[in-house]
Amino acid sequence: MAGNSFGKLFKLTTFGESHGQAIGGIIDGCPAGIKLDLEKIQTELNRRKPGQSAIVTQRKEPDTVEFYSGTFEGETTGTPIGFVIKNANQKSKDYSHIKDTYRPSHADYTYDEKYGVRDYRGGGRSSARETACRVVAGAVAKQFLKDIQFNAYTASVGKIELDKNIKELDFSLIETNAVRCPDPASAEKMEDYIKQIRKEGDTVGGTVQCVIRNMPKGLGEPVFDKLHAELGKAMLSINAVKGFEYGSGFEGTKMKGSEHNDLFNEDGSTKTNLSGGIQGGISNGMDIYFNVAFKPVATIMQKQETINKQGENVEMQGKGRHDPCVVPRAVPIVEAMAALVIADYLLQNKSSKI
Amino acid sequence: MAGNSFGKLFKLTTFGESHGQAIGGIIDGCPAGIKLDLEKIQTELNRRKPGQSAIVTQRKEPDTVEFYSGTFEGETTGTPIGFVIKNANQKSKDYSHIKDTYRPSHADYTYDEKYGVRDYRGGGRSSARETACRVVAGAVAKQFLKDIQFNAYTASVGKIELDKNIKELDFSLIETNAVRCPDPASAEKMEDYIKQIRKEGDTVGGTVQCVIRNMPKGLGEPVFDKLHAELGKAMLSINAVKGFEYGSGFEGTKMKGSEHNDLFNEDGSTKTNLSGGIQGGISNGMDIYFNVAFKPVATIMQKQETINKQGENVEMQGKGRHDPCVVPRAVPIVEAMAALVIADYLLQNKSSKI
Amino acid sequence: MAGNSFGKLFKLTTFGESHGQAIGGIIDGCPAGIKLDLEKIQTELNRRKPGQSAIVTQRKEPDTVEFYSGTFEGETTGTPIGFVIKNANQKSKDYSHIKDTYRPSHADYTYDEKYGVRDYRGGGRSSARETACRVVAGAVAKQFLKDIQFNAYTASVGKIELDKNIKELDFSLIETNAVRCPDPASAEKMEDYIKQIRKEGDTVGGTVQCVIRNMPKGLGEPVFDKLHAELGKAMLSINAVKGFEYGSGFEGTKMKGSEHNDLFNEDGSTKTNLSGGIQGGISNGMDIYFNVAFKPVATIMQKQETINKQGENVEMQGKGRHDPCVVPRAVPIVEAMAALVIADYLLQNKSSKI
Amino acid sequence: MAGNSFGKLFKLTTFGESHGQAIGGIIDGCPAGIKLDLEKIQTELNRRKPGQSAIVTQRKEPDTVEFYSGTFEGETTGTPIGFVIKNANQKSKDYSHIKDTYRPSHADYTYDEKYGVRDYRGGGRSSARETACRVVAGAVAKQFLKDIQFNAYTASVGKIELDKNIKELDFSLIETNAVRCPDPASAEKMEDYIKQIRKEGDTVGGTVQCVIRNMPKGLGEPVFDKLHAELGKAMLSINAVKGFEYGSGFEGTKMKGSEHNDLFNEDGSTKTNLSGGIQGGISNGMDIYFNVAFKPVATIMQKQETINKQGENVEMQGKGRHDPCVVPRAVPIVEAMAALVIADYLLQNKSSKI
Repeated sequence: MAGNSFGKLFKLTTFGESHGQAIGGIIDGCPAGIKLDLEKIQTELNRRKPGQSAIVTQRKEPDTVEFYSGTFEGETTGTPIGFVIKNANQKSKDYSHIKDTYRPSHADYTYDEKYGVRDYRGGGRSSARETACRVVAGAVAKQFLKDIQFNAYTASVGKIELDKNIKELDFSLIETNAVRCPDPASAEKMEDYIKQIRKEGDTVGGTVQCVIRNMPKGLGEPVFDKLHAELGKAMLSINAVKGFEYGSGFEGTKMKGSEHNDLFNEDGSTKTNLSGGIQGGISNGMDIYFNVAFKPVATIMQKQETINKQGENVEMQGKGRHDPCVVPRAVPIVEAMAALVIADYLLQNKSSKI
Repeated sequence: MAGNSFGKLFKLTTFGESHGQAIGGIIDGCPAGIKLDLEKIQTELNRRKPGQSAIVTQRKEPDTVEFYSGTFEGETTGTPIGFVIKNANQKSKDYSHIKDTYRPSHADYTYDEKYGVRDYRGGGRSSARETACRVVAGAVAKQFLKDIQFNAYTASVGKIELDKNIKELDFSLIETNAVRCPDPASAEKMEDYIKQIRKEGDTVGGTVQCVIRNMPKGLGEPVFDKLHAELGKAMLSINAVKGFEYGSGFEGTKMKGSEHNDLFNEDGSTKTNLSGGIQGGISNGMDIYFNVAFKPVATIMQKQETINKQGENVEMQGKGRHDPCVVPRAVPIVEAMAALVIADYLLQNKSSKI
Repeated sequence: MAGNSFGKLFKLTTFGESHGQAIGGIIDGCPAGIKLDLEKIQTELNRRKPGQSAIVTQRKEPDTVEFYSGTFEGETTGTPIGFVIKNANQKSKDYSHIKDTYRPSHADYTYDEKYGVRDYRGGGRSSARETACRVVAGAVAKQFLKDIQFNAYTASVGKIELDKNIKELDFSLIETNAVRCPDPASAEKMEDYIKQIRKEGDTVGGTVQCVIRNMPKGLGEPVFDKLHAELGKAMLSINAVKGFEYGSGFEGTKMKGSEHNDLFNEDGSTKTNLSGGIQGGISNGMDIYFNVAFKPVATIMQKQETINKQGENVEMQGKGRHDPCVVPRAVPIVEAMAALVIADYLLQNKSSKI
Repeated sequence: MAGNSFGKLFKLTTFGESHGQAIGGIIDGCPAGIKLDLEKIQTELNRRKPGQSAIVTQRKEPDTVEFYSGTFEGETTGTPIGFVIKNANQKSKDYSHIKDTYRPSHADYTYDEKYGVRDYRGGGRSSARETACRVVAGAVAKQFLKDIQFNAYTASVGKIELDKNIKELDFSLIETNAVRCPDPASAEKMEDYIKQIRKEGDTVGGTVQCVIRNMPKGLGEPVFDKLHAELGKAMLSINAVKGFEYGSGFEGTKMKGSEHNDLFNEDGSTKTNLSGGIQGGISNGMDIYFNVAFKPVATIMQKQETINKQGENVEMQGKGRHDPCVVPRAVPIVEAMAALVIADYLLQNKSSKI
């Protein structure tokens, strides 16, 4: 139960600390017969990579994924896909200052409480570096789900919001700017704001929105494993996430039933989609959309009071190269987790009727 | 994987349609040696019961739980606890009008897509009646967790919000009003609003907030099974839920790191608690708090256009006795699911170190 | 993990002590659209029932199964099937003599060591009464697997063996005698021997053989979840089982590869079947066959030395009505567990290729 | 469900084909705070290695394990332990003759039926090479379980049996001969026989016996997850295994209850141990012992008739370097799987009472 696996039939298990020798994972349950384009997987991984633009951490990590098993002559064989991403820079020189110190709003204190021991270098297992493995597995899932489209993008940075309806958005613009916002005007404001925040030695939060198109009907399990419940868990398991809402979300709580109900067209589609593509926990074929809230990164380049292992007050200041805002690099992670969820439910659904 | 189980070590599996003979469940993994007060469990169940006040559905369902196993001489034995709640009123006369009709924003259409067949009486398995079993299991979990306090309450109904800080609230007032809001002034406004909505034949959404006190440190598993990820899944699995946020939540995305970080006191507690009692997915001993968004009930007493199985346009109108707002009866369900999550992680945590 | 569930996609969870109010279970994951013949299920249950013949326990237990959910108009709906078997005779008068006494080779001592508390009446949860629930679920699985035939029968009682090759057996004779042996001559000897053993106040062991015909190819998962590994676990989980072998089994260890290999026919079938229908953990379409070893029942009607909770030597003697040989009633349990395993793997296999 | 994971709380997931780039695994759930001696792990792996003696395959595989995560300063941290064993010789030249040919009693045919595609080089995923990962994980488990002793050894080769009672055996002699039998006289006979069989271009089966000493009481879960049921599954999941029995096993079926019952000593230990250390599925603190049946290796150096993918009759003959008897190298695998089972149940048992 140690919590390093995700999914039931399409299952990812990951390992690795940020400053160990390598991180990696095993994808178990990927069906046989899928042609895998390995370059596409590396491309997805590059979207998450440090150093890719001026508004993310400037750490140098090549993040090259090596596949060790599970494919033969370019095709999946149904056996587990093992992969490894070597850690380029394992020297721990930058982390001696946090060896005995608990960084505020990090996982240092809680890991020590839970395990009694901790790899303090770069956050160890609690580092967001682990999410690189999710992106690899998500990229494999996407190739399995080839007709289903996953479009995540930055919907807000701090108080700057993408103020457009989903229908107005052109998803082909997402990768045209460093902040990954499909609205160029908003993107520019967000980017400027992130740069300003970084100058202050501070950080800021934001939200990612994700739209899943071409969804098959009938995915999701009733009661505890509702499709949106698992999507919610998937998103909340990403570092720094504080909230999840789908369809009408928190705004929907203010509406009346007569306003909120999605009336049917004759073909079973609905005139509105406040349900967010899921009814009773099961996909209805309409677009799924949801929002994910990311808090501001806890590591700031300003002095902060904190305590050490001995419970003494000490002062600390972030060192090294950190993201002023996690949201642009979180976009591919959100997509990856969404793809893992949908892949798993697609396989699960094969046993729902004879 | 059919999704009718929740939890790994403290596990609930439920069965039952709203208009079958009975609903029930099995609690597996409850440790031996817990004195069980069965009346307290029934009391919890009564908090969820239809007909308990003027602002909830007036259906008559006694909802009496019978325990069949797992205890001996008043104590749990470590063996599975089987229980059953008989369905009082199994006659289906009220449901003939929906036999072939898909109610808007219900699970009728998606169940048919998934299974090809469906018990259409009262929503069948998709009925919120299933949550009665969760309340039973949650009440058992609470007795196992006796020092940990679960306080859920209505935080908003439509646009009427409980406008007080958690610290100002007196949780002993929650059960003093039908709407289950610890602030009597807000409660009155909410109650009036629900009555008005009901007169309109309409429904309205709302939010439940939950505060967990006396939390042990170290609960939660890193990476995929973070404590808040599982809490989120638990809440999102409740009927009508559209969103979940904990700690600073969606509001926290607008903050800077320098504002958001929770600085430590010397004893490891924190001066602020925007983390919501969870850091890196693991409890830090501070209060856990979170919000759950409920959409307006889909069944309204107004005429609506819809379609039938044949894809023809038909008109329908809700019959029978339904909740104008699900939130007051959802309060004990939120508490129950929270207790199930914490019980499970308490057991899981026993294997984190030697 | 409390071990009261079996299966992953076609999953049974059971509850109930022998002297509680009821035993029962939940079958989760049975696909929608299966016509269920409830009488056939009761018939299977009757094959396991006490009092059915002169050579089994003479206890009176009606063992009537009641279904509470999961079917609608005679068909499964894909939702969980909840069922209950009431315990007819819950009076505990016969068990006061074992309240503080540990019966030799029973589970009394180990349950106390594990849980610190125990329902001592009739073995509580460790009673073979629990297997009634397995027979119910297995009977449902059989109806799902309608073309696959499960034939279990008594292959030995003590040293009396059914000395015929599987191919010579006429399975239609299994139910023609009380001992459930398809060879009438052997059956008579076995029955006489069991009667003699009972007169001595003693018990005896035996073996059950099971043959599965019309197996689909490709069932079983590689590596840890090989088809025979799960069949083995299923059988070893039945009360009193001490061993499992399939295909050539323990005898096969004495053979050479040149004798043991099953050569192919052109259609993929094999000329011999020492593999027992499974190669590399995956079914090859040939008949699956295996043997299950049952030890002699531990409760004997003779005086035995033992100890009590206080570690004092005491003398005890079995009371009541017990089976002199468990094998005849174990036959339907073996079939049921085999059916549960095959049903689960049939569903799992749906996700092995695109 | 793809079957490449074993264990629930102490969980191993493996990947890798025999002729891919590497095999490896992830151990998830190993508690924090265990000092790991990595050399000891390599030593265990060397016991399984090809080429170690004259009676095993002469393939050259260095089998060096590299650890990538999960330890810090020599101690486990509670995070997943990722490891990799590179495949030294990935060239596939030796396997072209089996590309389209189904080897008798191998997994070639069934893998093709299941997946529709297969890495035919050296058996791919069905190769016993995968068990190297089990030995690594088992060696970690042994260090966690340091007081519990696992002693497996060869108990028979073909018809040559180790004809001594467990109590007479000196386990320190196991590693003094190539066949791994603690009785030197039997070992010599076995070794001679294996050499003779190899000369014939044939193979032979055998059995491994395992004794677990210093067992804690109370391990094992009632009903489906009985300790011996999981041990049985673990053993049956090893390549070439056809049977499992524990305690009195198949011989016990011939006994009477009055002979078979284990009477108690005052301290709760038993005078005899036909129960094999497990009663009602739960350990009672006595030694656990069991037998595992291995069939003769299917690859023989003699000509055999077989078929190819097109269903045509073809003739084939094993090439390369194969084991004439799998048993000597299976000994450490049996120990490893036993250690994984016990580690898992030790963790599970922590939640059995308050």
